[in-house]
Amino acid sequence: MTDRVAQEAFVPGHVTVFFQPRWGDTPAETGSIGCGVTLSDGVTVTVTEDTDSAVVMNGQVIEMEPVRYVLESFSTTVSVDIETSLPIGSGFGVSGAAALGTALAVNAVSGDRRTENELVTIAHSAEVKAETGLGDVVAQARGGIPIRVAAGAPEFGEIDGIPGMHRIEYLSFGEVATTDVIRESDRFVSAGTEALSRLTAAPSVEKLFEIGRGFAEETGLLPDSVAPIVDDVVGAGGEATMAMLGETVIALDTGLSDAGYDPSACHIRSPGATLQLQ
Amino acid sequence: MTDRVAQEAFVPGHVTVFFQPRWGDTPAETGSIGCGVTLSDGVTVTVTEDTDSAVVMNGQVIEMEPVRYVLESFSTTVSVDIETSLPIGSGFGVSGAAALGTALAVNAVSGDRRTENELVTIAHSAEVKAETGLGDVVAQARGGIPIRVAAGAPEFGEIDGIPGMHRIEYLSFGEVATTDVIRESDRFVSAGTEALSRLTAAPSVEKLFEIGRGFAEETGLLPDSVAPIVDDVVGAGGEATMAMLGETVIALDTGLSDAGYDPSACHIRSPGATLQLQ
Repeated sequence: MTDRVAQEAFVPGHVTVFFQPRWGDTPAETGSIGCGVTLSDGVTVTVTEDTDSAVVMNGQVIEMEPVRYVLESFSTTVSVDIETSLPIGSGFGVSGAAALGTALAVNAVSGDRRTENELVTIAHSAEVKAETGLGDVVAQARGGIPIRVAAGAPEFGEIDGIPGMHRIEYLSFGEVATTDVIRESDRFVSAGTEALSRLTAAPSVEKLFEIGRGFAEETGLLPDSVAPIVDDVVGAGGEATMAMLGETVIALDTGLSDAGYDPSACHIRSPGATLQLQ
Repeated sequence: MTDRVAQEAFVPGHVTVFFQPRWGDTPAETGSIGCGVTLSDGVTVTVTEDTDSAVVMNGQVIEMEPVRYVLESFSTTVSVDIETSLPIGSGFGVSGAAALGTALAVNAVSGDRRTENELVTIAHSAEVKAETGLGDVVAQARGGIPIRVAAGAPEFGEIDGIPGMHRIEYLSFGEVATTDVIRESDRFVSAGTEALSRLTAAPSVEKLFEIGRGFAEETGLLPDSVAPIVDDVVGAGGEATMAMLGETVIALDTGLSDAGYDPSACHIRSPGATLQLQ
């Protein structure tokens, strides 16, 4: 079995702080504007040439629609092994990371020779089709603190970034179903546009968190489990907001620790998704 | 002295394999199309708030025009310390890296709050104005194996990438004056466009090196010192080409070693320029 070709990719987690869906004629033209942070905690995807295309996540065989759509775009049959320490379905972009990592890794073992932008487009379109996310893939491909200025795959979208390296702390309590929320997107129309223009007027990571808190309240998305913790961090002089979409608090630097909590900690990941050197 | 604010940035080296200048009305609209490789060997820039803006490279005070232009875009006065093990003026994009690293680092110590794309634009425009390069900065900001599909700063340019991690070996014999070559760019017009369309038809890093050899011969840029070494590597079954613009051979994987040379070695740097975590 040692002669089977395998390839590993790492994709950072991505927490959206605010967003606004943008619907286009195709999945590649669909996406969201907004801003978030990419994290050094992420998803490692290993693909191996195989006779059947099983998908395993953290040791369990699963059905993962966006990964399935990605695999359909390639001529090679591979098994996919996904490993992550991030909470699932809690606003860390695990499905987008799994889709993008699969696209990068399967391309490397196949002879298909797609470019990076083509691979990002395949993964982004798979997420949109599966209704598991709208902006994570393009953000995860770039890394850092990506601002999605225009929505969609690289051919249509436009990304800028807030420079800066920071520690990020997080606490997660459970899932929010992304599909349900993005389908009732009318209520974000003004909040997302306004948040983006406030951020680009004076872009900083502190401002991003402040804008995120306003966005969460205005859209009514802030879970009861999350609101008091965000308040505690801000009361202790820190910056925190909720992850879109999850029952998750993220805080800048040592915000949660300073407020007396015992969070997970990582940092902004400046590079985006990468293939591992073989 | 310990309370002065300092910030460090790392920018990968970048070797252009083929290119074609594209002249626009402004420096931001000017640039080049083409393709190259970014390297884990690069340039570290440390800026420190100071009363005068001395620029020091590898221990020596120097005048570096693109860095000077970058500093003029910021309100804070800083000294700049540039460290690199790369050969200077030999096709590794050291001037572009110094400009981009300075822009990222001085922004972090100033209150100017530029976005990433704005900082890339400042550094790119400084390089174009100083006539020290046309495509390095945008490539170094992205990392990997960047294809410059459309020329210029982020607002105008467009970048794709060839996925892949490889060892890169290099041997350098001396300088080629970039300014002189890019001024007589008429002879690249057809060679650069043709090289780009051949690469995007079947993008791979092996193809890139093969196209680079043809481009170097067709444009008459291949130095006599470089040509026989490129032949040796290809004769030994490897891939090599010249760096645009320098008396420099770069080879894929162990190409130069396999042909009996004793090269410097590094690898493709997947992330682009990054601020160091403080």
